[in-house]
This record gives sequence, C-alpha cells and structure tokens, in this order.
Amino acid sequence: MSASPFSVPPYPVVRLKPKANTAALNAGAPWVYADELVTDRRTRRLPPGSLAVLEDAGRTPMALVTVNPESKIIARVMDRDPGAVPDADWLRARIERALSLRSRLYAEPFYRLVHAEADGLPGVIIDRFGDTLVMQPNAAWAEQASETLADILCEVTGASCVIKNASGRARGLEGLDDVSSVMRGEMPGPIEVPMNGATYIADVEGGQKTGLFYDQRDNHAFAAKLSEGARVLDVFSHVGGFSLAALAAGAASGVAVDGSEAALALAEQGAQASGLADRFETRKGDAFKVMEALIAEGAQFDVVVADPPAFAPNKQALANGLTAYARVASLASKLVAPGGYLVLCSCSHAADVTKFRQASLRGIARAERAAQLLHTGAAGPDHPMHPALAESGYLKSLFFRLD
Amino acid sequence: MSASPFSVPPYPVVRLKPKANTAALNAGAPWVYADELVTDRRTRRLPPGSLAVLEDAGRTPMALVTVNPESKIIARVMDRDPGAVPDADWLRARIERALSLRSRLYAEPFYRLVHAEADGLPGVIIDRFGDTLVMQPNAAWAEQASETLADILCEVTGASCVIKNASGRARGLEGLDDVSSVMRGEMPGPIEVPMNGATYIADVEGGQKTGLFYDQRDNHAFAAKLSEGARVLDVFSHVGGFSLAALAAGAASGVAVDGSEAALALAEQGAQASGLADRFETRKGDAFKVMEALIAEGAQFDVVVADPPAFAPNKQALANGLTAYARVASLASKLVAPGGYLVLCSCSHAADVTKFRQASLRGIARAERAAQLLHTGAAGPDHPMHPALAESGYLKSLFFRLD
Repeated sequence: MSASPFSVPPYPVVRLKPKANTAALNAGAPWVYADELVTDRRTRRLPPGSLAVLEDAGRTPMALVTVNPESKIIARVMDRDPGAVPDADWLRARIERALSLRSRLYAEPFYRLVHAEADGLPGVIIDRFGDTLVMQPNAAWAEQASETLADILCEVTGASCVIKNASGRARGLEGLDDVSSVMRGEMPGPIEVPMNGATYIADVEGGQKTGLFYDQRDNHAFAAKLSEGARVLDVFSHVGGFSLAALAAGAASGVAVDGSEAALALAEQGAQASGLADRFETRKGDAFKVMEALIAEGAQFDVVVADPPAFAPNKQALANGLTAYARVASLASKLVAPGGYLVLCSCSHAADVTKFRQASLRGIARAERAAQLLHTGAAGPDHPMHPALAESGYLKSLFFRLD
Repeated sequence: MSASPFSVPPYPVVRLKPKANTAALNAGAPWVYADELVTDRRTRRLPPGSLAVLEDAGRTPMALVTVNPESKIIARVMDRDPGAVPDADWLRARIERALSLRSRLYAEPFYRLVHAEADGLPGVIIDRFGDTLVMQPNAAWAEQASETLADILCEVTGASCVIKNASGRARGLEGLDDVSSVMRGEMPGPIEVPMNGATYIADVEGGQKTGLFYDQRDNHAFAAKLSEGARVLDVFSHVGGFSLAALAAGAASGVAVDGSEAALALAEQGAQASGLADRFETRKGDAFKVMEALIAEGAQFDVVVADPPAFAPNKQALANGLTAYARVASLASKLVAPGGYLVLCSCSHAADVTKFRQASLRGIARAERAAQLLHTGAAGPDHPMHPALAESGYLKSLFFRLD
C-alpha cells in the first residue's frame, strides 16, 4: 500500500460568505462555488486538493471538503461529518459501498464502478471491464490520491490492471494534466464485454472516453425488446451498442453508421465475437449524409436509433443543439417503416428531457409522421445520481412508435 | 357485429375561436377546450359523442373530432385527417395497431391493451387479462360505440369476455352513468396473472380500477433486482405488486401492508399461487400507523417500498399532497437498514417528478439519512403517452439507496 496522500487533522478552515446557499448545502448539495466562499489569502494559498473543514458564515462546522482554489467549484464535500478523516480506510469503505451496489445489479463484473459525487468520491469516475479498471481522477484531491486509490481498487475488486485515463475535459478546469498511464498491471488488448446477450469489444487504450459506454445498457435492452425480426439502423453507432443488442435479441439485420473507422472496426469485431456477423454491416460516414443517402435510396427500417454526440454540451450551444436534434429526428423518421420504432438519444447536459422531447417531436412532425411515446430512458443504475444534482441527468433516450 | 354506432358523412362543422391554440393543435394536441370553440346554438345542440369536422378560425379543416358540449374537453381529435370516417374498420385498425405493440412487448396476453389518446382511441382504457378484457369507455363517443368495440375486441384478440367498468371518475365529467356490466361472455372468477416471475390474482369484478395495476410492472421488476436475499416491506401493497415480484426474485421475506382486507386477501392468494406463501405475510391497517408501529418495534428492512394512492390528484391538493409524500418518505426511511433500498412512488398528476423527488428528499433528510438516486421509473410501455400530453406522465417511482 502506498503512503497515504492525505493530510491529517487538524484541517484548515474555510468559511462560507453570508450570501452562500447554506440551505442547499445543508440539504445535501455537494459543491461550493468560488463566489460563495471567503477567499482570503490563506484560502487562496491552499494547495489544490487540500482537505478543509467547511464552516458556515456563523462559524458552525458543516462538512469536510476538498478545496481547489483554481476551480470554479472551489470546494467539494468529501464527508458530511466535519470530523471525518478521509484516509485509506475511508476510501476503502466508499469503494466497497460502490461495489456492493453493482454486485447486486449485475451478474458479471462489467459496469461503472464509481460515479463520482453520487458514490461519495467527488470527481472520480471508474469503469470496470472484468479485471481491468479505467479510472478518471477528475479532481485535484483524486489525482493526489490516485496511487492509494489504485491499491485499494485492486484489493477490493481483485482487479489486476488499473489504467488512468486523463483525457477528461474536467481535468483542465481543475488544473490537472492530460497524461494517461497504466498504473497497475499491463495495458490489455481489446476486452470482450458481455451485455444484453451480445459481446462488445472495448478498447480501453485507444477508445473514446473509457472505451465503452455503459450508460446506455438499459436503453439498448429496451430497443432490443422492440427488435425481434426487425431491420435495425443504428446511427452514430460507436461500437454497435444498439445494433448488436438488437441482433442478439433476434433482429433480422443491423446496419451501424458512424464516422469513426476505429469504432466501426470494434463493432465488427463485436459482431464476430457475438456470432452475429452474418446479419451485421457497417457504413462509415457523416451520419447526416448517410441518412440522406438512405432516404434517397428509399431505404426503410423497422427500428431506427440515433445516438449522436452531445450537440448541446452547454447553454451557449443549446439553440443550435436543439436544431441539430430536430434535424436528426426528421431524417431518422423518414427511414422508419410504417408502424416502426424510433429511438432518439441525447447526452447533452444543457438540453433537459422536455426540451429534447420537444425538439424531437418537431423533427418527427417535419417528416409528417405521428408518434406515440413509449418510454423515456436514462443512464442505468450503475450511474447513480447525487440527489442534489438529480436535475443534471444528462442521458435521455426517447422511444417512439411512428404511424 | 352490431350496427355501426357512428354517423356518416357529411359531418357537421365546429370551428375554433381566433384565440384558440391552433399551433398546439397543428403540432398534435388531441384536445379542444370549451373556451376555444365557437359554441353557437348548433354546436351546443350536438348530441354528446357526435362526430364533427374541426375547422380553424379561417375555416380550414384541421381534423375529425368527437364533440361533447357537456364536457370541459369539448372536442377530442379522432383522426388528423378531416376526411376520415371512423367506422368499424377504422376502429379495428386502431385496436390491431394497439395489439401489435403489446404482442411485441409481452410474451403473454396480460397488459393494458388500449391507453386512450396515445392509442388513438380518446378516453378509452382497455386492460387485458388473458381471455378477459376490461374496458373503460370514459368518453361519450366510446360509450355509444361500446357494443361495436366489444365485437371488434373479441374478433381481433380472440377474447371471450368483455367487461365494461363504468366506475371511472372521468365518466361523470362526460355526463355518463356509472353502471358496469358484462358485455360479452360471463363474469370470470379471480384471474391468475403472470408477471415478473410471480402469479398475481386479479379480481376484475370487485377490485380497484380494472382489478390490477399493470403500470408498475417495470418498477416491480427493478425493485425485484435489488431484492435477492432481502427483507422486503411493501407499504400500500394493494394485491402485493412489489412484494410478490421481490419474493419471486429471491427475497428472504415479504411483508405487505394495506388498508384493504380484500386487496390483502388477493395478495395472499397470489403468494399461494406463486408458491411463495411461506416467506410472505400481510399486515392490515393504516399505512402511516403500521410504519410508526414498526419503527417503534425497531424493525428494519433491506428494501422498503411505499406506493400510496394519489395524495395530490389535482392542483388544489398539491401542497398537502407533497407534505404527505414527505411524511411517507420519512417514515419509510427509518425502516431501511443501513445500505438498504427505498422505493417511493407517486401516481399524482399534479406532483411532477421534480416536486415529488424534492418532497421525497425532504422526508429522507428528516429521517437523517443520506441517499443515492439509482433510477426514476414511470409507467410501462403498454401505457404509451400521447406526445402532446407527455408532461402528464402521472406515475413516478424513485429508487434510492440509503447510507
């Protein structure tokens, strides 16, 4: 076990301004914004990632926090108990708690193991691919604790390989570098991931994010239920999340469309590994152009899925993002056979479910189709939400049937 | 086949006022409110349930509607095509379309077959229990068409029994009576309903609503996934929806609490039929008082579910309703063992998911528990939503893990 990266009590004190949203913090909010904290010289000089006791303006201790004077989120609640000591035992208890939830939910060790604030580990994302863990320490305290975290992760889960993925945008906001590394074990080759009856191939080295998106698992399953005997079109397919699950559930054919040759190669490997390659094909290209070409060909599918990248990652991008979602909805609708199904997804934080649904319905109406809304899906339960951040559910999947 | 209850074209014309929300109607809204329609003497004299062509204020035909001058919802869209003729063939096509969705989703014929506007049959609810169909014709046109509907339902589904349930509150608003009847076949005894690995007993004659609530099926399944080896408390249990599914998934024990002796008797019959009676018990009483008594006893459960009746059925009841939801959350939280799960449900139209979640979190905080939000469930896909009414999703189920 590495030496503890944590400082020991007594911790320095940081104090809320009188105008801070003390009520929200008392009700469980996990973040303090820079303009809510008294940033005297002593606080400004705290090294990023320092532990501190947060007091309200009346000097009552509220919580133990980690402070990063360089971040807009200047303090993150580590523990509601101001007297907590976040040492290795504290970390281990949080990891064990996270593991116990996933062990209950999933028969096999493939899931998001730690989902940041909601799992009591601010800024830390850990995805599990069997014996391999991919960790994103996206806050300063976690970067400093990453060696201890790696040790505890191996000990608690039995994993033999821990990879640090430093590509997250959030690290820049925390003043952290973007240098990924293999922390324990050796970089594995492509990993076979069993989900929803199919086998996916995760490339934890070269892939997007942590190599595979677990968050859509339940939505893949719902679409698969609609897909028996169906011709399935999977637009913005990445490694074939929707199409391979649909084929495993008995779809007649699956076509995956993506701009990334690497993603489509992994999708094809997944189809091979799943024994589904004879019903699967890929089409590389700009998704909008491919959909337009398919419309021009008169192609029709029984299930069409569009799971694009975040068109509205922030408020500034919202209006253009919603326009893009409506355009996707319109193009995709035109490819749905009468009585078929349309699945539209958004992973945009800024577009809430109401706005996204409205944009989708505008697109469907523009294609002169009428719709029933069957289901609204979100990220699966291995992506729990901190209750105070529950408005921030980023992933929305809308399941429509079209006339 | 009964004679068609429908009038034939040419249909009378009804016309929107200039101030009506024509844009919403053009975008798919299915209802016209009384203050949006020109109610001249001719329109006021239309018999409830009449078919008519809806025109906008500029006299452009917009849709075929059914008119009920006695209802606040004065017109309901039957067909977006103003030239449609809703005869028996038209009805059959709608029923077949509804059936095709359910046949795809469910291996066995137990589901909501028709969910009103979302299935293109305004005001009509039909639940299927194998060979028995329970129909709620909650709009005047459907009351008049009910004999034809019964014939077509038997023909399309092969069902042998059709029961008319006239107890819905909506019928009063439409000026309809509350006389239930057996329309086809004979009133069956209790019906065994297979769901989520358990067998439920539906009493379509004496039961609440249509005898069993299908809308919670997916939420029963999600709770069951959390329940292996667990002690489960099912408060406001009705016929044991959550507890029987949990026991079928391997729960160690299930306790169902309800105020209705009849509902608990059906729950016990279901436990017997499922072979789960040895792990199941019931406790009759006021749910609040039973929870208080269990707290006083020091009882603890690994999974606690509370699925109360609608505390906030309308806007007037919202504030009191949210207070009641918070109280349920607080009491239920106190009964959850450390690291256990809490499932809180609301079927209140007036309490949207944000308000219900906030009330639930207030209650959880009052019990001095911290929570993760794992999942937000809604009614299953046999309860599709009309896209223009999607805000009205009434059923919310919140799945928390407590520290």
